[in-house]
Amino acid sequence: MPTDRPSLIPALKNIATRLRIDSIRSTSESGTGHPTSCMSMADIMAALFFGEMRFDPKDPKNTEADRFVLSKGHAAPILYAAWAEAGAFDRSELLKLRDISSDLEGHPTPRLPFVDVATGSLGQGICAAIGSALNARRIGSPYRTYVLLGDGESAEGSVWEAADVAALDKLDNLCGITDVNGLGQSRATMWQHDMSQFERRWQAFGWRTIVIDGHDLNAILDAFEQARATAGQPTMILARTLKGKGVASVEGKDGWHGKAFKKGEEMDKAIAELERQFVPVPGDGPAARSANRIPKPPAPSRPVDQPKPVAPPNYKLGDQVATREAFGAALVKLGDADARVVALDADVKNSTFTDKFEKAHPDRFYENFIAEQVMVGSAMGLAARGAIPFASTFACFLTRAADFSRMAAISNVGIKLAGSHAGISIGEDGPSQMALEDLAMYRAEPNYTVLYPCDAVSTERLVALMAYHPGPAYMRTSRPKTPVVYGNDETFEIGGLKVLRESGDDVATVVGAGVTVFEALKAYDQLRAERILIRVVDLYSLAPIARDALIAAARATGGNLITVEDHYAAGGVGDAVAEAVAAAGFTVHRIAVREIPRSGKPDELLERFGISASHIVQAVKSLKLPVRS
Amino acid sequence: MPTDRPSLIPALKNIATRLRIDSIRSTSESGTGHPTSCMSMADIMAALFFGEMRFDPKDPKNTEADRFVLSKGHAAPILYAAWAEAGAFDRSELLKLRDISSDLEGHPTPRLPFVDVATGSLGQGICAAIGSALNARRIGSPYRTYVLLGDGESAEGSVWEAADVAALDKLDNLCGITDVNGLGQSRATMWQHDMSQFERRWQAFGWRTIVIDGHDLNAILDAFEQARATAGQPTMILARTLKGKGVASVEGKDGWHGKAFKKGEEMDKAIAELERQFVPVPGDGPAARSANRIPKPPAPSRPVDQPKPVAPPNYKLGDQVATREAFGAALVKLGDADARVVALDADVKNSTFTDKFEKAHPDRFYENFIAEQVMVGSAMGLAARGAIPFASTFACFLTRAADFSRMAAISNVGIKLAGSHAGISIGEDGPSQMALEDLAMYRAEPNYTVLYPCDAVSTERLVALMAYHPGPAYMRTSRPKTPVVYGNDETFEIGGLKVLRESGDDVATVVGAGVTVFEALKAYDQLRAERILIRVVDLYSLAPIARDALIAAARATGGNLITVEDHYAAGGVGDAVAEAVAAAGFTVHRIAVREIPRSGKPDELLERFGISASHIVQAVKSLKLPVRS
Repeated sequence: MPTDRPSLIPALKNIATRLRIDSIRSTSESGTGHPTSCMSMADIMAALFFGEMRFDPKDPKNTEADRFVLSKGHAAPILYAAWAEAGAFDRSELLKLRDISSDLEGHPTPRLPFVDVATGSLGQGICAAIGSALNARRIGSPYRTYVLLGDGESAEGSVWEAADVAALDKLDNLCGITDVNGLGQSRATMWQHDMSQFERRWQAFGWRTIVIDGHDLNAILDAFEQARATAGQPTMILARTLKGKGVASVEGKDGWHGKAFKKGEEMDKAIAELERQFVPVPGDGPAARSANRIPKPPAPSRPVDQPKPVAPPNYKLGDQVATREAFGAALVKLGDADARVVALDADVKNSTFTDKFEKAHPDRFYENFIAEQVMVGSAMGLAARGAIPFASTFACFLTRAADFSRMAAISNVGIKLAGSHAGISIGEDGPSQMALEDLAMYRAEPNYTVLYPCDAVSTERLVALMAYHPGPAYMRTSRPKTPVVYGNDETFEIGGLKVLRESGDDVATVVGAGVTVFEALKAYDQLRAERILIRVVDLYSLAPIARDALIAAARATGGNLITVEDHYAAGGVGDAVAEAVAAAGFTVHRIAVREIPRSGKPDELLERFGISASHIVQAVKSLKLPVRS
Repeated sequence: MPTDRPSLIPALKNIATRLRIDSIRSTSESGTGHPTSCMSMADIMAALFFGEMRFDPKDPKNTEADRFVLSKGHAAPILYAAWAEAGAFDRSELLKLRDISSDLEGHPTPRLPFVDVATGSLGQGICAAIGSALNARRIGSPYRTYVLLGDGESAEGSVWEAADVAALDKLDNLCGITDVNGLGQSRATMWQHDMSQFERRWQAFGWRTIVIDGHDLNAILDAFEQARATAGQPTMILARTLKGKGVASVEGKDGWHGKAFKKGEEMDKAIAELERQFVPVPGDGPAARSANRIPKPPAPSRPVDQPKPVAPPNYKLGDQVATREAFGAALVKLGDADARVVALDADVKNSTFTDKFEKAHPDRFYENFIAEQVMVGSAMGLAARGAIPFASTFACFLTRAADFSRMAAISNVGIKLAGSHAGISIGEDGPSQMALEDLAMYRAEPNYTVLYPCDAVSTERLVALMAYHPGPAYMRTSRPKTPVVYGNDETFEIGGLKVLRESGDDVATVVGAGVTVFEALKAYDQLRAERILIRVVDLYSLAPIARDALIAAARATGGNLITVEDHYAAGGVGDAVAEAVAAAGFTVHRIAVREIPRSGKPDELLERFGISASHIVQAVKSLKLPVRS
């Protein structure tokens, strides 16, 4: 940044001091929080926000503005202080930190307009930052992405997944800063102040590294300049700092993590000590307000991508198509119609059929190799910046990113996840490759859309619906080929269901989803041959769920509701239906997988683990049915 | 290994060829599987099993035997072939690979006596191997642990968590081998055959590295020797190999991952090509059978640790003690009584109170820093080798290890997890620190014990019960202090519940757990003042669940069942109770957290997010109650 350093440095020094004071004051007022974790990074924040980044405090979502992700989310108070210093809101708001009335929460969430993704679970912010950097490339914007990590955080494996991916993608628009204050929550960190430990790891993973004294403002500014001038690789600035810097009684001391200064004498003394650190600034005055120092990004003039219409599905009734394959095909069509659609893979593109998307849209296909955490984290960053990211792998391996899915829920960010090879119907590969708890995982989050189509047409329709439905979404697909049961003009909705068989004489409603729809249909045929009629429901939307339609079906079929699912008993289709109909007084008979499965042929497994047509027939027959003439 | 190399090498070469043939034959018979992933590592397996490891094929669980973990679990066929070659079972069994009648599953599981933990989700085996190596140190055994990884697998962050922990713990009894065959599932791996990429990463993380040609038996044997002679650090042997090695038509070719040779000409040709690679072995004959080459470990003579009795709890009714603190105290007592009990932390020991255990038993306390995956994976290895490992962190961060918990279920291995700071009752830290989906996660697995105590006495009793209950278990603890409600002599059982308030006039049963037990008790008091009586249940065991007692309570209280939980609505207490009572025809009114929460004071949050006493009172009053005089 070609600035007048002699006047800039003292100004930044004073800003850093104010950020420290604000961090102390706000946490003391709350009585909780992490002031010392803020104090170690105050100089970095001052230099970054008021000497490096281009952004508009009054328009934080500007598509061309540089981004900042606070990966060590527990340092939220100094993030808020920096935005107040920049003029985004009044400094007095800081004293409402962590109050139920304020959006200045204990850890940052996108309730605040300047927060892209929620942080507070360590090792995630750097993954989201990759998504943000990829998005700049996607839209052709020169905006840069900065991410600040803690040193303790570097023990998280997701950090190294991110390190690999960022280097492979040559993300020179990404700049990390590690605040090496040497102290974790409960003890000294793994490597304390041995900077060479950090340096050799980041270098080994292909990053440029710059080791600095994190309290030397000149060094910090120089490092940012060097990072900006680095082509072909991301940069990690490794900043040696002291936790609690600026207040001698806590500086570099263990036992002060997550502890506020006591309001009153303890806080007053600390603030007085910091106030003595203010320095005269040449030419300081009203014109030199911090906000005025910030270089503004260009006004956002980028045209909004307008999606083209997507052609309807083109399948034939009875065609045998696996839903995972239909997913891949649908994604290509969606990508043709909408430039915001991108796909992320974890080295299974030939199983999830996203290789079709890669072929059609190679510039919007991001390979993460076998690293599910960075795949989902990166999708979070992409979604927060306006892309529509579909991340997919085997459904069982999405559990690897469960904590990321959780944080995506808190962020309420529009990631679209697709998990293939669900359930025991995958067959011979065995239990390690079978997702049997994925529905429970996503249904638990209150704002996830959870879809589970049974055929190619519904898959294609639902892929388009989930893309444009706000918030996070999950689609479960299956390995085996299943027949197309819906016409190409059939319409679907998030929160809907389809009744596939019904009559006025149905004795029970059998609710299936995915592969079990076909078991239910088989059971229907067998029972009909014995003059027993059942209603068959395809519950393709688990969350939201068609409560009224389920209650109506239960009412029409003697209150006999049977669910059947290729999933463990807890948290899946059965529980979803049970809660939906509970208020109407109906209970559910759940057919599900109830023990750890094993390898075998799909049909053998469905039979052995109790979710095949024969088990549905048996369940229907065990109902106390009225005798029909 | 001081062996006669000139005769050993040709013998090992022939073994490697047989292992390749067996891998092809068994996968071709199944029609599925990963023969080429086996063929790249055949020479390593031959050298490891018949030139390096000390084990007894007839007693694979021998406590003093060297361990082998196949982290790239999809190469299961060659693992089985090696054990057959060693004489553990008849070679003809190999042809039942992946059949429902055989324990030779698609990926290894502990259904087989020589498999310690299930693998098949990449990046986990190396974490379990750390647990195995730590266990050798715990019992003072010289056994060594070997773990074989794929190169694609190295993209998983958990591998680097493991790398850090093994180096920090100076595990020189651990030897890794990376099979660098350069090809992943869907394409070339990240670094293909650039061995320096692997070398610099492992060196940066503090391991000794040895780069070899993975098809050079002398080099492999030398590397094992060097690893054995290395003190103070673990060794990673980086073996350059060719996928499909031995059959020219597939050697080093993309597109052959997870593909069996077609039975018939394709298979026959491949096997014939391999058979031509057999070489004469000097002095070969019946006496030189492979099994005879294996150095046996000492007979297991180690005395079994006999736990001493644990003193009963020592709390006073009404004492205010957080269950997380009672957990820490209980763990110390358990550790005093039983030398098999160990504790694992992820830098939150001062919040989970396992710092008490560290103080009492520093040699059985394993710090993993902020790395939840290796913490849980290492616990799996420890449990598989006879320790009773308690791994704990904030419950929300256990989601980081969800895939490990899943594989622990498949392994049915006795890890004991404890998640603290559950739910919105933690207050100001905000949603990123609140576990609201943990019960759903563990309840989904069919063999987890899930416990959720509300006071210190029940916590202490349940910690001891979960320690000795077979299989994996999870305990949820809370941040706020809660009053002791049980006497020190009160007894508890896995699968039990406690009725805290009851009368003959109860109009409803309110089922709470953890902090909501106290909201239910407050509601009881308020309602009683209005002459409305309710039954209050403490459901401290979610899985298994006291089905009969819940049905009895529902029957006795007009069928009115209300659950209240500090957890999202799906997958937690409400769903658990609902399924338990469904067959008896009862439905459940669920009070739970139904949106993303925020920061605030605990009591404010309980009120705002609908799980406080006032919401219970309201729910009871909204029931259609008989008018009492």
